[in-house]
Amino acid sequence: MANEKIPYKIYLSEEELPKKWYNVRADMKKKPAPMLNPGTGKPVTKADLTPVFCDELVDQELNETDAYIDIPQEIQDFYKMYRPAPLVRAYCLEKALGTPAKIYYKFEGNNTSGSHKLNSAIAQAYYAKKQGLKGVTTETGAGQWGTALSMACSYFDLDCRVYMVKVSYEQKPFRREVMRTYGASVTPSPSNTTEVGKKILAEFPDTNGSLGCAISEAVEAAVSTEGYRYVLGSVLSQVLLHQSVIGLECKAAMDKYGIKPDIIIGCAGGGSNLGGLISPFMGEKLRGEADYRIVAVEPASCPSFTRGTYAYDFCDTGKVCPLQKMYTLGSGFMPSPNHAGGLRYHGMSAILSELYDQGLMEAISYEQTAVFEAAQQFARVEGILPAPESSHAIRAAIDEALRCKETGEEKTILFGLTGTGYFDMYAYAAYNDGTMTDYIPTDEEIAASLANLPKVD
Amino acid sequence: MANEKIPYKIYLSEEELPKKWYNVRADMKKKPAPMLNPGTGKPVTKADLTPVFCDELVDQELNETDAYIDIPQEIQDFYKMYRPAPLVRAYCLEKALGTPAKIYYKFEGNNTSGSHKLNSAIAQAYYAKKQGLKGVTTETGAGQWGTALSMACSYFDLDCRVYMVKVSYEQKPFRREVMRTYGASVTPSPSNTTEVGKKILAEFPDTNGSLGCAISEAVEAAVSTEGYRYVLGSVLSQVLLHQSVIGLECKAAMDKYGIKPDIIIGCAGGGSNLGGLISPFMGEKLRGEADYRIVAVEPASCPSFTRGTYAYDFCDTGKVCPLQKMYTLGSGFMPSPNHAGGLRYHGMSAILSELYDQGLMEAISYEQTAVFEAAQQFARVEGILPAPESSHAIRAAIDEALRCKETGEEKTILFGLTGTGYFDMYAYAAYNDGTMTDYIPTDEEIAASLANLPKVD
Repeated sequence: MANEKIPYKIYLSEEELPKKWYNVRADMKKKPAPMLNPGTGKPVTKADLTPVFCDELVDQELNETDAYIDIPQEIQDFYKMYRPAPLVRAYCLEKALGTPAKIYYKFEGNNTSGSHKLNSAIAQAYYAKKQGLKGVTTETGAGQWGTALSMACSYFDLDCRVYMVKVSYEQKPFRREVMRTYGASVTPSPSNTTEVGKKILAEFPDTNGSLGCAISEAVEAAVSTEGYRYVLGSVLSQVLLHQSVIGLECKAAMDKYGIKPDIIIGCAGGGSNLGGLISPFMGEKLRGEADYRIVAVEPASCPSFTRGTYAYDFCDTGKVCPLQKMYTLGSGFMPSPNHAGGLRYHGMSAILSELYDQGLMEAISYEQTAVFEAAQQFARVEGILPAPESSHAIRAAIDEALRCKETGEEKTILFGLTGTGYFDMYAYAAYNDGTMTDYIPTDEEIAASLANLPKVD
Repeated sequence: MANEKIPYKIYLSEEELPKKWYNVRADMKKKPAPMLNPGTGKPVTKADLTPVFCDELVDQELNETDAYIDIPQEIQDFYKMYRPAPLVRAYCLEKALGTPAKIYYKFEGNNTSGSHKLNSAIAQAYYAKKQGLKGVTTETGAGQWGTALSMACSYFDLDCRVYMVKVSYEQKPFRREVMRTYGASVTPSPSNTTEVGKKILAEFPDTNGSLGCAISEAVEAAVSTEGYRYVLGSVLSQVLLHQSVIGLECKAAMDKYGIKPDIIIGCAGGGSNLGGLISPFMGEKLRGEADYRIVAVEPASCPSFTRGTYAYDFCDTGKVCPLQKMYTLGSGFMPSPNHAGGLRYHGMSAILSELYDQGLMEAISYEQTAVFEAAQQFARVEGILPAPESSHAIRAAIDEALRCKETGEEKTILFGLTGTGYFDMYAYAAYNDGTMTDYIPTDEEIAASLANLPKVD
């Protein structure tokens, strides 16, 4: 068997690491719909975006034609500190399931930020530094993105100002302390450091904060401070571009050993991991060179692909960012407070939304207890304690492998293991204690949220 | 320069991984002093130890003659899930320090237990399973060893009973939940599940527990339960044997690229990491084939090498285990409660104690604020948030590299980065907040503790 030669973990050498990112939009015949300026209702221009985002990142955001974009040497050097990420053959999981399927996962958690977010954080910090900026602002919920950004800013000696949702700041202090260790300033949001924060505090002095409010504060802080710009860890097309390093490494490793996946599975919140993982495979599919089943997995409590609508919407609850056409549950949609599994974003990457709308990929949703069941099973046999987000993909991969067991098919399954769950132990504790519950929004709740979509032509 | 070809991270291939552990005692002309039976005062026999420990592990504990011991295939297979551990060239740290020194570190934190402890946990679980046991018992403080053991037991489907110091169980719930996720039962100690626990609770109902008490409970639970044995994560010679995989991998990676370290640095609590890291290098030194400076780094608040005495002592506070000749501060010695940096053990591995006594290695101690300063500096440039324990070695490596900067010497420094600090963020928070303090025990405190050493001929 050829497979006997496939190691548990495939590491590319440093020479084999990608030198260019891949921009899947270049191979899409029908491109994603353009972002709209919320004031004028017209497609955004570079001039609309540069007060908020770094110049070169705006170029990347708007670039629909270049298939490959060079990864600057400084970023390649940083990647070498924690990449290549291993492509792992899940021999132990296969054995535990008794499946003839071959399961592979690309593990992005072997770095201090604990997830794939660092791939884009370092790129965004690099371009900010290159532009001569003093620093960047961002928001963070539980802190995964904020951690990655603080690491990247520390490396390039940039100031990093993180607005962290107040309830997470107080109740989940560990990622906050990681950010501070990397030199970031972390402000509980809402705060008195911005006009929007003061306004919200005056109205709701006891608020726990929300991601929407933190975004608004971070954007205000960037726009109103000389030498600062705002950065974002998902949803944007530039983020998917940077995250293509996941899929490019993955494909190079598979090609090296003659492995061709039948099914590619990734979890999807804003789409940064899924978009990065699938990009070179989707490129082949778009060019008619190969075919793959591609599956997005989302939480049943925040089901933008499976129960949302494809329409223009605000990217943020505060409605300060451009409008984007995407699968959305409405910018006011909030997952139930019992939802512990991440992937809380109300919308979805414009690129992935368009690919899904064209029927080039599927989507599926799972309730969180089923997701944590898969997480526990995976942890016990494969040794890695997965992030709740990643565990959505594990659930789907296990179910595909069990279907192969029934049918006897020897399918090759690839999934993205985006990160580790070390800072999510409260959620694991709820699962261990049997107190974790599920919640599926009603049709009425989703319809009510969608009733507030912005009116666009 | 030959060094230009040295990658950031050297990963051995699976074929290059060690197939045998190395037993440094075989190359020691003067062996470590034998363990003594605390009842008879005579050297322990196999029969003394088998009621407590697994049979094959007792053989390994007593084996002073075989230089190499085969690693069973099942353990090699498990090692492949998280090994090889990378040998990393700290290019960014070198640059930040402006040193001509070449710094390498062996990183053992890329697994869910977060440290090197898994290397011995999987071996001990394997031999327990092979002996047909139902399960094992152990104690854990902050939970690093307990986590590793629960992962290993889950893999071999063994029951795992962990006695966790009560104050850690309550105040540091995250590692507790990792253990539970892996199926271990975790009991706050002291508990009503053992006679010794009941007795302590009757006398001190509000006690926070201690490692000594947890050891006593774990040993009692093992000895009094059919099909169970007790396992321990450090100090023992069998543990150093298993941990030799660290040093063997490290040496293989260095030999592959023609690198010869001048100085080898490791943190030392009970000695498991240091003993494993240095073993093949020490072997060369013992055989007269090469010379290396070998440096043990310990906390100034628990300085067994640098301020303890070389004498027979109890291995545990509860005085139920055999006596061992070692550098010790006395089995009743407790580091100050402000000590956050791990490495709290009052004694030291018998092997390392004998090597130190023969002048084959040095020791140095640091206060914890200096250690966390090094931890933060390292995290910011090398991207890995280190465990407080590991950061003792980082501190020493940085200071050696700064001395090279003064003298212009291009020394090659190797240190062991034993793990990550993700579950130690309270300690980092204290450092970030400026509230961390140092404590050095007085000569009187150490003398008072040493006054209670057992009388041995």
